[in-house]
Amino acid sequence: MNETVRPIDLTCRETFDHWTAVTIRFSDQDPLGHVNNVSVAAYVEASRTMLIRPFLLQDKYPELDFALVHLEIDYKGEFTYPGIVDVGGRLERVGTKSFTTSYGLFTGDKCVATAGSVNCFFNTQRRESVVPPDDVRALFEERMASQPV
Amino acid sequence: MNETVRPIDLTCRETFDHWTAVTIRFSDQDPLGHVNNVSVAAYVEASRTMLIRPFLLQDKYPELDFALVHLEIDYKGEFTYPGIVDVGGRLERVGTKSFTTSYGLFTGDKCVATAGSVNCFFNTQRRESVVPPDDVRALFEERMASQPV
Amino acid sequence: MNETVRPIDLTCRETFDHWTAVTIRFSDQDPLGHVNNVSVAAYVEASRTMLIRPFLLQDKYPELDFALVHLEIDYKGEFTYPGIVDVGGRLERVGTKSFTTSYGLFTGDKCVATAGSVNCFFNTQRRESVVPPDDVRALFEERMASQPV
Amino acid sequence: MNETVRPIDLTCRETFDHWTAVTIRFSDQDPLGHVNNVSVAAYVEASRTMLIRPFLLQDKYPELDFALVHLEIDYKGEFTYPGIVDVGGRLERVGTKSFTTSYGLFTGDKCVATAGSVNCFFNTQRRESVVPPDDVRALFEERMASQPV
Repeated sequence: MNETVRPIDLTCRETFDHWTAVTIRFSDQDPLGHVNNVSVAAYVEASRTMLIRPFLLQDKYPELDFALVHLEIDYKGEFTYPGIVDVGGRLERVGTKSFTTSYGLFTGDKCVATAGSVNCFFNTQRRESVVPPDDVRALFEERMASQPV
Repeated sequence: MNETVRPIDLTCRETFDHWTAVTIRFSDQDPLGHVNNVSVAAYVEASRTMLIRPFLLQDKYPELDFALVHLEIDYKGEFTYPGIVDVGGRLERVGTKSFTTSYGLFTGDKCVATAGSVNCFFNTQRRESVVPPDDVRALFEERMASQPV
Repeated sequence: MNETVRPIDLTCRETFDHWTAVTIRFSDQDPLGHVNNVSVAAYVEASRTMLIRPFLLQDKYPELDFALVHLEIDYKGEFTYPGIVDVGGRLERVGTKSFTTSYGLFTGDKCVATAGSVNCFFNTQRRESVVPPDDVRALFEERMASQPV
Repeated sequence: MNETVRPIDLTCRETFDHWTAVTIRFSDQDPLGHVNNVSVAAYVEASRTMLIRPFLLQDKYPELDFALVHLEIDYKGEFTYPGIVDVGGRLERVGTKSFTTSYGLFTGDKCVATAGSVNCFFNTQRRESVVPPDDVRALFEERMASQPV
């Protein structure tokens, strides 16, 4: 992702106004004695799901969901069990069939990772990417307008 | 585990005075649309580690840890993401080289699973079960004496 | 599970004629430098699913699946990444709405764990345990009759 | 990662001569009925570890390991349990304290994902990135020279 997509500082708590707390598990750690990178992908997904689901209007559109197209994670420092990771999430852009989100993961004030993802709107019956309904798109745009700059 | 080992009602919150909160992750769920049994084993371990670690005096005995010998889980009902599982943990018995613990997992007041485990005191250098130091054993016995009956 | 349920030696390869190979992953390991107990539950599930799914006739009964009611695992020894775990699975008993299975996990000829589970036949639409169709039950009974004694 | 880093086609089996087979697990799947993105990160790590570990000469340098700095995954298509994912891995570049690797994940001939990672040489005692010994670097360079172009 280039600067046009992520012009903002994901290592800074002020960048986010959507937060998901994830508790670290003992089994998230690996033989190096720190949280394994795979677990970090699960933390990011927990945030992504909480951020995006409310905008999909699944009561109205039961076949509408989203799927991951691209994920990238930058690991900024080691951290260990036990503890809580606060995952800040942002909506960055909405395209025709896809949208971009970014994340900052913090233990206290320390940024331990940042992440970005590209997702597509996905029809779970047809198993393919789709153009979302207008009212769904409107919710995405509303969200983007309200975020910290 | 028979009635001698678990004479108490693990489906009842009052049975526990040690609690570990675990946040459910989207990826804990499986194609049946509920939290997968494997994730429940991770929740139990998170509680077990928080319950037992303080008694091992690892600053004084850096080679002392514990390992799992036997695990059993009873699944009481379905539950889904998102949410928090409150895991109550109890120390049930301390033997020469092993100890027994039991657990109740709750979403709100609903008990979703109970569990029991047998663990051994484990020397991480010698890679074998060991008799714990007297002051460690004393901490285990103190804990057992203070728990709800 | 008592001797009536598991009268056979699960630590012995000859006990099994259904095998599922599971590759160990680096992230299955924990800070003790060995495969974590939670991963073992995932290995058992991989075997259970391969053992049971063919008997459910899901093309004919799309709402029929099974869910876990009780799981127990005995950990027999440490093992590490990389490697393959051969999981042997057996069908032990079929009741009205439930069935019992047991497992032996091997790295080479070394038994690293044994396991048992109680499962219920589960209707994924009604979200409840059910009595299976007669032809499904017949497949379970056929399987049991053909296993090593 | 730009074109200079990955000038080659990661969706093509011929790009790789290092392969790691990973068995898909039932619990790798999520409520959308396909393998979850988090599991894909574990598959990539299994390949990365098998690819890199032999070059670290850990018998000679017991404190030398590597840690992940950056991971990116492109998801090319859905896939499900059961099955095997063949993960092809390549070493792309070695810098002063870091190295770059890339991956292609295949079920049969279908490419289901590609990935790239930046890793640092890591001293497990000092908990920091380090310049690797000359003979380790030589092994990395030898590996790069021998790969398919």
